Amino acid sequence: MQNFEFSNSTKLCFGKNTQAQTGELIKEFNGSRVLIVYGGGSVKKSGLLDQVKRSLEKAGIYYIEKGGVVPNPRWSFVSEGAKLAKKDNIDFVLGVGGGSVIDTVKAICMQAVYDGNVWTDFYRKGEVAKNALPCGNILTIAAAGSESSANSVITHEDEKFKIGAYSPAIIPKFAILNPELLFTVPKYQIACGASDILAHLMERYFTNEKNVDLTDRLIEATAKTLINFAPLVIQNPKDYNAQAELMLTGTIAHNGILDLGRIGDWASHGIEHQLSLFYDIAHGAGLAIVFPAWMKYVYKHDIARFAQFFQNVFGINYSLTNLDLIVTEGIKRLEAFYTSIGMPTRLSQIDIKDDKIAEMAQKAVDSKRVGNFVQLSSKDVEKIYKLAL
Amino acid sequence: MQNFEFSNSTKLCFGKNTQAQTGELIKEFNGSRVLIVYGGGSVKKSGLLDQVKRSLEKAGIYYIEKGGVVPNPRWSFVSEGAKLAKKDNIDFVLGVGGGSVIDTVKAICMQAVYDGNVWTDFYRKGEVAKNALPCGNILTIAAAGSESSANSVITHEDEKFKIGAYSPAIIPKFAILNPELLFTVPKYQIACGASDILAHLMERYFTNEKNVDLTDRLIEATAKTLINFAPLVIQNPKDYNAQAELMLTGTIAHNGILDLGRIGDWASHGIEHQLSLFYDIAHGAGLAIVFPAWMKYVYKHDIARFAQFFQNVFGINYSLTNLDLIVTEGIKRLEAFYTSIGMPTRLSQIDIKDDKIAEMAQKAVDSKRVGNFVQLSSKDVEKIYKLAL
Repeated sequence: MQNFEFSNSTKLCFGKNTQAQTGELIKEFNGSRVLIVYGGGSVKKSGLLDQVKRSLEKAGIYYIEKGGVVPNPRWSFVSEGAKLAKKDNIDFVLGVGGGSVIDTVKAICMQAVYDGNVWTDFYRKGEVAKNALPCGNILTIAAAGSESSANSVITHEDEKFKIGAYSPAIIPKFAILNPELLFTVPKYQIACGASDILAHLMERYFTNEKNVDLTDRLIEATAKTLINFAPLVIQNPKDYNAQAELMLTGTIAHNGILDLGRIGDWASHGIEHQLSLFYDIAHGAGLAIVFPAWMKYVYKHDIARFAQFFQNVFGINYSLTNLDLIVTEGIKRLEAFYTSIGMPTRLSQIDIKDDKIAEMAQKAVDSKRVGNFVQLSSKDVEKIYKLAL
Repeated sequence: MQNFEFSNSTKLCFGKNTQAQTGELIKEFNGSRVLIVYGGGSVKKSGLLDQVKRSLEKAGIYYIEKGGVVPNPRWSFVSEGAKLAKKDNIDFVLGVGGGSVIDTVKAICMQAVYDGNVWTDFYRKGEVAKNALPCGNILTIAAAGSESSANSVITHEDEKFKIGAYSPAIIPKFAILNPELLFTVPKYQIACGASDILAHLMERYFTNEKNVDLTDRLIEATAKTLINFAPLVIQNPKDYNAQAELMLTGTIAHNGILDLGRIGDWASHGIEHQLSLFYDIAHGAGLAIVFPAWMKYVYKHDIARFAQFFQNVFGINYSLTNLDLIVTEGIKRLEAFYTSIGMPTRLSQIDIKDDKIAEMAQKAVDSKRVGNFVQLSSKDVEKIYKLAL
């Protein structure tokens, strides 16, 4: 286990009707002039945005709003949002939505108090922001885990890069987690979210760090819960109990507890980011395609760790003397899980051909180091895309 | 799953030589006049206290010290410590030790800023303190989980009560967790600590709340890790990797993550507190005696939950149609685990007879509600003590 420092102060407000507390929560964290950020029309249609505004009004909080965040959220929106926040002396940014909205909020919070260019310094160069406006969020899909994480992923449409930034300064002050708000998420989006959560668990699991048994067990426990409940939620999105499990799983998967003292891999995220950058596909769908291919390409690097994962999460007990059998069978069952929840597992299923593979592979390594468990070159990444065809 | 609010902001500083950061950490949390609290001579003998003082001096921090906290820590010490803190304008209290020291620190932090009597209002009456001085700690035994919890248990020697208090205001600002500092803990104390950790997990597990699968899985994962590593640590206390697992397990078991959305039982803690109050035994040893007896007394209240625990933690697969068999076998294996690490499982093993059972049972129910999973009367508690004879 590596030495580590950890803290996560996000206040989780979980349960029915918790969105009614929004105004009071913002006051608790000294917000008085709020920018509300959201995506498309769903939070308007559902009435959630109105409920939130009423809560802010009741608490005597001034607010402005900016809607229109798209999946694979764009730097241009961040830039506009930060200008708006500066101009109107905003002191708190509230996201109402999923990971794209919350990642956008975090980027706005950094840019609103920074004289340089946040995209260049914190996303491209990987420097760590020291300050940011405080933010909070009301989550509307279980997926990204951004609601209590220190991370944000943004796409710069002109430079054509999709990259993450990290800073403790952007950990949200609060996250309102009401499973009822997930009842109207389309089934395909629920599945994409589940795939993203599972990916966050697997990225953390595949590490070269030895003696990380507690976090191994905790990740396995969370992955088993995800695999059990995601299909139940997709069958019946109005099942409060199943949605509650999925929602809490998404938060725990990414709040930092599960990778204490270990360095995760994150190659599959880097490889997927190019797919959503080039083809604007859903991140979760891309991950369901990339992860099995990545596993096939790297598993021999530490076959015992892969065997342990598939034994403990998928319950495969197959051969003590031929771990290869466990792993190859395990990857098949992982693919079967993705298929069962309606996720693609091959690029061909979403009509992506091999014509941009070399370009995407180059972009992946140009964006960021690809892989900590096994560091991958652009040639390696190309081969993984080809395995996924 | 119940609605819940949760946050835990304790900064965990885990790993080798992290005690050297103490001074800088206190500065980070705006401490400038520090009261250092510790127990007996072991932190002096080991040189830890000197290392801590050097770190504070290097950071330019003024400090005074007060040693002498005893196991089952006393209100009289708290009272003196708080007077000292007020008199010398202390703005930060640092605990160097285990749960007794840290619980004492928390009580001092409340009393130092409170005009009323903390013992009467927050321990006896169960009110929740709104303010407290900030505190931090350097942990020297994996056990109580107090290093990042909002709880403190104190014994009032004149009133003869041992009771816990809870307040978010006493969550430590930081916890320095260096497994090397555990190398010199006597084996009996290591076992007492492991028993306390396991008890924290089981208290949380036995709940009437339905649909708490994620936290069920996480508790099981943590319990499996504890049961695996405690014997390894006792075999070789200088095994850094095993100590690291045990130490992190103790923190995670009690930091609040594992009981999100559920209400734990805590009867066994209440029942044990009378044993350590009346006989001044180690809390962990008392828990190893009380927990199996409590289980025998209440398991029929929710036999499926007990069977799930023993199946998933102890790997007992015995009978789908007679869960009773799983549970009775499970309790035997739990007792065997306690025995294997050198813990007693019967009062007779530590020379406690039945003469004070009625008095202790009455004290337990006078102190606090006993049991949320099954609420127990003094007669019930008496029967549990008798089962433990």
